[in-house]
Amino acid sequence: MPRSAGVIIPSAGRGSRMDSGLPKQLMLIGGTTILGHTIARILQIPQVRHLVIPASGPIRDQVRDIAAGCIAAAGLTGEVLLDVVAGGKERMDSVGNGLQALQKSGVALVIVHDAVRPCFPMDAVARALEVAASDGAALLAMPARDTVKMVDEEGVVESTPDRRRIWLAQTPQVFRTDVLARAYEVALKNGFNATDDASVAEHAGFPVRVVGGSPDNIKITYTADLIFAGQWLDRHQNKTSSRG
Amino acid sequence: MPRSAGVIIPSAGRGSRMDSGLPKQLMLIGGTTILGHTIARILQIPQVRHLVIPASGPIRDQVRDIAAGCIAAAGLTGEVLLDVVAGGKERMDSVGNGLQALQKSGVALVIVHDAVRPCFPMDAVARALEVAASDGAALLAMPARDTVKMVDEEGVVESTPDRRRIWLAQTPQVFRTDVLARAYEVALKNGFNATDDASVAEHAGFPVRVVGGSPDNIKITYTADLIFAGQWLDRHQNKTSSRG
Repeated sequence: MPRSAGVIIPSAGRGSRMDSGLPKQLMLIGGTTILGHTIARILQIPQVRHLVIPASGPIRDQVRDIAAGCIAAAGLTGEVLLDVVAGGKERMDSVGNGLQALQKSGVALVIVHDAVRPCFPMDAVARALEVAASDGAALLAMPARDTVKMVDEEGVVESTPDRRRIWLAQTPQVFRTDVLARAYEVALKNGFNATDDASVAEHAGFPVRVVGGSPDNIKITYTADLIFAGQWLDRHQNKTSSRG
Repeated sequence: MPRSAGVIIPSAGRGSRMDSGLPKQLMLIGGTTILGHTIARILQIPQVRHLVIPASGPIRDQVRDIAAGCIAAAGLTGEVLLDVVAGGKERMDSVGNGLQALQKSGVALVIVHDAVRPCFPMDAVARALEVAASDGAALLAMPARDTVKMVDEEGVVESTPDRRRIWLAQTPQVFRTDVLARAYEVALKNGFNATDDASVAEHAGFPVRVVGGSPDNIKITYTADLIFAGQWLDRHQNKTSSRG
């Protein structure tokens, strides 16, 4: 499998469902931003050679400092290229900008990952990299543990799809770089908008495979998630890096 | 609205995704079974007059002791009727047995609730009781925070439904008793099986409405959930009961 991967971590989001006025990715867990925790862990993936972070104007310098600090702390200065690019209005605009920046390193695979998901499982990412290298696209996902309802605009249930067929998407999502670049071209042409990058590949007709993720791999959304993530990171961050 | 409700808490489940050999509802949080925490909180719903617990053979006596203990501790002996009925092979068999037992108290509304969801929001249950009394059926649910994938048997994504239409079902689910009884008749006749009771009502053609639940209202499934639920219950169990 290809030994080089780039990572795009969209960090343009400003919204927060928690009370703080801070963008969620800049909230602190144990004195470190959530974004810093996420990047530190992403840098433990041995294939990573290029880190691209789309970030919006006012926080761009801070995001660059965080990322550069993580790269230095991991002893990877010079080994991992860093680009902070413009964040877009929509998530897809940000990832599109990131894809352009990745062209200069010519990485074979691209990992797209949420800034606010620091608790992802390394072994599943390794599998997703293998599956994407062979089949084009893979995402971490979990089988739904709750029954899922399709609901109309009035709040009335329309249907209950078979739960065995329903998976909840997580990130990392991994793509052959040519697959994701082509998928973004198709989406741009068709005006297609989506909440995740796997959807963009699906829309362009590429097969996308699910790889079992982890229930711990939450997108930090609510205050209770901060408590959980803090405990999880305490347990995991002192483990030896899988990187040499 | 009707002032009387019965509760069915199916407790026949034996499975556990955690390492313990215990049924999940009998695992301890702070020295009390999860089932005990759940029942104690259910008894704070002022309308509850009848508690029915389907439980399978070997744990039936323990379940009865737990439930009777909760009723006594809440000072509701004589006010809340208790029946422990046979658990069935499928969840629907258990709830069906529970529905039969509810006939003797003639409650106007029936609340069906998972044994392993102790952290449910009281205000949402009050709304669900109102909606069910007027419209027939209501369930607590949360908008999906992750993108949802429909996946085929090979693990390839088939589609990504619009996330705004997707809600994750929780319990309590509340029904007019006549609605749920009729729905179970239809399901039995058609051999329809489902993972939640709202589906049974939907299958029979009854309108079912969603009421916003809470992200805290988790179905305890993983070890991390025990930690979360323990902290949550610590924060909430000393609050004054809403019951006189």
